[in-house]
Amino acid sequence: MPDNPLHLLLHPRSVATAGAGNNPMKMGTLQALSLIKDGYQGKFYPIHPTDKIVLGHRAYASPLDLPESPDLALIVVPTDQVIPVLEDFAKIGTKRAIIISAGFRETGDAGRKQEERLKEIAAASGMRFLGPNCMGVINTGTALNVTLGELPKRPGALGFASQSGTYVAQTLPYLKERGIRFSKAVSCGNEADIDMIDVLEYLGEDEQTKAIILYIEGLRDGRRFIEAARRITPHKPVLAQYVGGSASGAQSGQSHTGALTGPDLLYEGIFRQAGIIRCHSIEDLYAHGWVHATQPPLRGKRLAVVTNSGGPGTAISDTADRGGMTVPRFSDALQAKIRPLIPPHAAGANPVDLTFHLDTQVLALTIPEFIMESSEVDGLILHGAVNSGFLQMVYPHIRGLIGDVSREAFLETMAKDMDAAVGFHRKYDLPLVVSSFFGRQDNFTSLYMDNDISVFDSPEKAARGMASLLRHLEIRRRKPIVTPALPPASPAATGIIRAALAAGQRALDEHQAKELLAVYGVPVTREEIARIEEEAVKIANGIGFPVAVKACAWEIMHKSGLGLIALNIRTEEALREAFRSVREAAGKATPVLIQQMVAGGREFVAGMTRFPGFGPCVLFGLGGVFTEALQDTCMRSAPLSAVEAEEMLTDIRAKALLGEFRGLPAVDALTLAGILQAVGAIALLHPEIAEIDLNPIIIAGSKPVVADALFVLRA
Amino acid sequence: MPDNPLHLLLHPRSVATAGAGNNPMKMGTLQALSLIKDGYQGKFYPIHPTDKIVLGHRAYASPLDLPESPDLALIVVPTDQVIPVLEDFAKIGTKRAIIISAGFRETGDAGRKQEERLKEIAAASGMRFLGPNCMGVINTGTALNVTLGELPKRPGALGFASQSGTYVAQTLPYLKERGIRFSKAVSCGNEADIDMIDVLEYLGEDEQTKAIILYIEGLRDGRRFIEAARRITPHKPVLAQYVGGSASGAQSGQSHTGALTGPDLLYEGIFRQAGIIRCHSIEDLYAHGWVHATQPPLRGKRLAVVTNSGGPGTAISDTADRGGMTVPRFSDALQAKIRPLIPPHAAGANPVDLTFHLDTQVLALTIPEFIMESSEVDGLILHGAVNSGFLQMVYPHIRGLIGDVSREAFLETMAKDMDAAVGFHRKYDLPLVVSSFFGRQDNFTSLYMDNDISVFDSPEKAARGMASLLRHLEIRRRKPIVTPALPPASPAATGIIRAALAAGQRALDEHQAKELLAVYGVPVTREEIARIEEEAVKIANGIGFPVAVKACAWEIMHKSGLGLIALNIRTEEALREAFRSVREAAGKATPVLIQQMVAGGREFVAGMTRFPGFGPCVLFGLGGVFTEALQDTCMRSAPLSAVEAEEMLTDIRAKALLGEFRGLPAVDALTLAGILQAVGAIALLHPEIAEIDLNPIIIAGSKPVVADALFVLRA
Repeated sequence: MPDNPLHLLLHPRSVATAGAGNNPMKMGTLQALSLIKDGYQGKFYPIHPTDKIVLGHRAYASPLDLPESPDLALIVVPTDQVIPVLEDFAKIGTKRAIIISAGFRETGDAGRKQEERLKEIAAASGMRFLGPNCMGVINTGTALNVTLGELPKRPGALGFASQSGTYVAQTLPYLKERGIRFSKAVSCGNEADIDMIDVLEYLGEDEQTKAIILYIEGLRDGRRFIEAARRITPHKPVLAQYVGGSASGAQSGQSHTGALTGPDLLYEGIFRQAGIIRCHSIEDLYAHGWVHATQPPLRGKRLAVVTNSGGPGTAISDTADRGGMTVPRFSDALQAKIRPLIPPHAAGANPVDLTFHLDTQVLALTIPEFIMESSEVDGLILHGAVNSGFLQMVYPHIRGLIGDVSREAFLETMAKDMDAAVGFHRKYDLPLVVSSFFGRQDNFTSLYMDNDISVFDSPEKAARGMASLLRHLEIRRRKPIVTPALPPASPAATGIIRAALAAGQRALDEHQAKELLAVYGVPVTREEIARIEEEAVKIANGIGFPVAVKACAWEIMHKSGLGLIALNIRTEEALREAFRSVREAAGKATPVLIQQMVAGGREFVAGMTRFPGFGPCVLFGLGGVFTEALQDTCMRSAPLSAVEAEEMLTDIRAKALLGEFRGLPAVDALTLAGILQAVGAIALLHPEIAEIDLNPIIIAGSKPVVADALFVLRA
Repeated sequence: MPDNPLHLLLHPRSVATAGAGNNPMKMGTLQALSLIKDGYQGKFYPIHPTDKIVLGHRAYASPLDLPESPDLALIVVPTDQVIPVLEDFAKIGTKRAIIISAGFRETGDAGRKQEERLKEIAAASGMRFLGPNCMGVINTGTALNVTLGELPKRPGALGFASQSGTYVAQTLPYLKERGIRFSKAVSCGNEADIDMIDVLEYLGEDEQTKAIILYIEGLRDGRRFIEAARRITPHKPVLAQYVGGSASGAQSGQSHTGALTGPDLLYEGIFRQAGIIRCHSIEDLYAHGWVHATQPPLRGKRLAVVTNSGGPGTAISDTADRGGMTVPRFSDALQAKIRPLIPPHAAGANPVDLTFHLDTQVLALTIPEFIMESSEVDGLILHGAVNSGFLQMVYPHIRGLIGDVSREAFLETMAKDMDAAVGFHRKYDLPLVVSSFFGRQDNFTSLYMDNDISVFDSPEKAARGMASLLRHLEIRRRKPIVTPALPPASPAATGIIRAALAAGQRALDEHQAKELLAVYGVPVTREEIARIEEEAVKIANGIGFPVAVKACAWEIMHKSGLGLIALNIRTEEALREAFRSVREAAGKATPVLIQQMVAGGREFVAGMTRFPGFGPCVLFGLGGVFTEALQDTCMRSAPLSAVEAEEMLTDIRAKALLGEFRGLPAVDALTLAGILQAVGAIALLHPEIAEIDLNPIIIAGSKPVVADALFVLRA
């Protein structure tokens, strides 16, 4: 994808730096050192106002003095020098820049204006840039490193786009310790020009990248994000952490990168819509991403657990079960192969618990291979393969017993060669995840880590890492999503809205709202407006008793508890009484809606809110009186395909209400999903509508009917 | 508490081992080595069949040959030798034993019998023992170590009772790496005699122990556990992990220690009842326990966050917010003190983000101290204090620039003395928790760890560790729990049950159930049994329309959807029709219940189930049609104090329904809680009752009324 701006940015033939000098403890210098020391093969041009030689390379006083136009400019100068430097690079035709310097949009209005100026300069010259306020990029494929630390020797397979620079630049030792290696990593900064979606799209097509992780504080173009991600997620796992969903997270993110945050419900929804696996910590993001990047995909949910200790085996089983996996009992045939290899009191049915056992050959290879070749499971977690770590643990106590052997000599004697333990699972194309309380000081831990097998430092974490693979199986099995074409805007609907606006309404009245819904095929209650009592009687007889009686005016957005609504009116006499009493409560000759009473034990809500950066978003949840008390809702960005609308239905805790339920038939899910699609379409077709609230949608038998509706118009 | 069996077991003046020899790679030898090498000051007597000297100590062929009766016997022999060895120790009057050997109850019936024999031997001689199938104990107070690894030099403050031996014996290097140190740790094994509750009670009174952690696969005496824990939890934090709640966890635990598991809902409930903080991983159990053991308690929920990077600051804020904390904006006065110390574009209002900054003095001391002395927060999380770790990270790149300086010399020059950074927070008596991506290779990380300040390796974990302290603030603020005295069993209730059993009933019919409830003061619907139509009419007129009409016989446990119930009968005509139709559906002249119709928008459920080891447990939740669909329930062990019953009411997600709600008054919580207490009391007073299900309890206005009731009797 040479048209993606990241392509040239990550594969420059030449890089010029402004802000690198010979003081090793300055950011710019450290980044330039990473560039020239880690194997990057292109040309390097330092720009320096006074020094003639910088880091052993000839320096130039200004970009204008350079012998050629570099592919990439790296700008790490004080804030007030960024604009002139960028102008100079623009003048000489440099097409890509990384602006590390901070002090722009994240600081307020003045900074925002400066950032606009950067965009103008770049746009005018056809330059694309990353930042400002970022920490650089890594491309291990070409040994391009513009961060603070040293790259690992071998390239990795995990692609990363981050709205925090720290997670790209300062965690390299943390990642090295755990054997996790990037393919490409990009600190996105303020995203004045190149944004996280560009990076995501690039990583989606990058062959070196086997899984993608995203650290997100806020998205400015949610819809483009969804579309981009879901082209990738069916074939390449994408995991994301979002931290802007709480009040404190939003406040902090704002001052960090000026991020545009949204409620957690919204991001939870768009991640599902896009097929993205959500993580709730940076640790999980890195670690689960690495499992996805290195292990074959899970093809089912059956897990084998092999351990040398009961506690971790139980903890792995319990956690995996919560993650949707099963720990099936092995067949008698498989148990018969395992039994002779383990102590008589040990468990062999799954989990296999060898109990305290120093024969790592059996634990780490023989038994796991028996299990994998049985085809009885889809993946395996191993806990307790430990050798030199254990020996170091006991060495202080036993050294007197074994003669005057040094720790090193002792480890040398005992350490076992177990290369086979890291290769066998590839034969069966099944994922293997390891748990150990011993870090790199143990030769097994190091061996696994150095051979792209994740080692988690506690059993529950290993189980959660494996269960993350199950999430991608579910995503691969999703029905294909095709963004639907919108129906044409209905002139009748436009007419209703225009008339309301012309009349000075700030909302539609209930009857107008229902008429508009009906135009788009949404099933609504039968109802008519009565202006006098006799008319009410005539309408009610036409609809058939029982009926509901409601004051109907746009100003009345909430009717309960004010005497403006009477339900279950069964006789003409009661109707007349209700008509008069509703009128009285309204205090004037308000039109009165005579409405079919819909009976049904199940009530849902559908709604629409617009979020900056996302456009209209559709809400679905448990409705009626429980809406607020239970807050059992989910959200998606519109437009909604049929598949996405159906997925919303099962995204609430109360999803059991949709099936056959206490003698009631299953809900007509197609119609209910259709209502959600229609809500999204109406919002897209009619931008005058600010909010929609359909509550309750009553399920009459199996059929959803909208019994009340509120449309708020834009001021 | 010298009467607690752990006292002598953890403070023996002499220990004899059976199973230790001179082969250093045997379990018994390793444990004996831990005993004699880590500083234990008592006498040590090895028992060995042939060797005369074991580990440098004179060995004895049998316990019977010992010169004195040792306080403690450590038994690590093959399974079939355990009984004779224990008999010998019993003969010489040894009062405490630890049986490490496995192969007992966890292996099935034969093993179960052998375990019973151990108990008989011990009981006959007044001996108390730990195990079998355990991994030993640690008492750092007396340097008593009967595990596999080396104790840390300094005693710790974290007490541990574990149903997994690994977590006591094989995680010592893991804990050392993280600076976590036990006071006492006990592997409970099969708990044939001494059980986890004995250990809990011991740790509760142990002055060295400042916080207690429990790893639980199943409890055999739930009630005793609750009573013991809640004597401790108001003044000393107790944290627990339970892993038996899922199908896979239960299956695995069973084969591990033969644990008696129960549903997750039950354990969740009894932990709340006991004031125990639940953890969901061994990592959290250790790490959060250590925060509780070392930090002053939180006195409020206001958190300060100080970092050198925006991403971690946002992640900490977001996670702490989810944990119930706030990250309040600092006062202008406090910001004015911070501002001059940070770059102009950096955030100073909370989180304080110094951005890339190498002046650790400001980050780790000056600013945190300004914040703590301001009294504007209750605790502080620091991220980014790093020195030698960062230097090591950049060293490979800068070594050319700084002359031919070795890594060690470079670190020596740059490393800063920051002892003040680990002491200041004690002055303010406020908790400090640290987050760093750098492990012990960094001098700051080591310094914090070595001074009892927790360092978490990711920002979210630090936030969760701090939020765990907030859980204990909530527990300290609980109203005192007084286990209530049961009312006397009512002869009328006993009569109802006896009559039903005598008639061969396996359940009470609805009317009998209501009569029994009414005897104990539970509000029920007004109702009477009609045997003929005319009687029905008379009863209905007495109660007042509308009424409900229900077939009433003990065999009919579920009435919906079978034509056995008619609701909202408003006229005499409709009543006659309903009477006939219910009779017809029942297929015989079943008694018919004519019942007051209770109207109310809110319905709850109360129930009772008996669990082995727990006795009757009371359930509360959202009732009516939503009971199964939403599964919004909680559970407690009976008897329930008024405080515990009230706590149940707010333990469901739908708790908002209990307050003022959509024009309805707040629920009479006292009466509703009283129903839960009564359900527990009834179950305790009448063991013939197997199960109770009161569903729905309808809230009429503010008053709860039981509208349907099922009592299942024991077969």
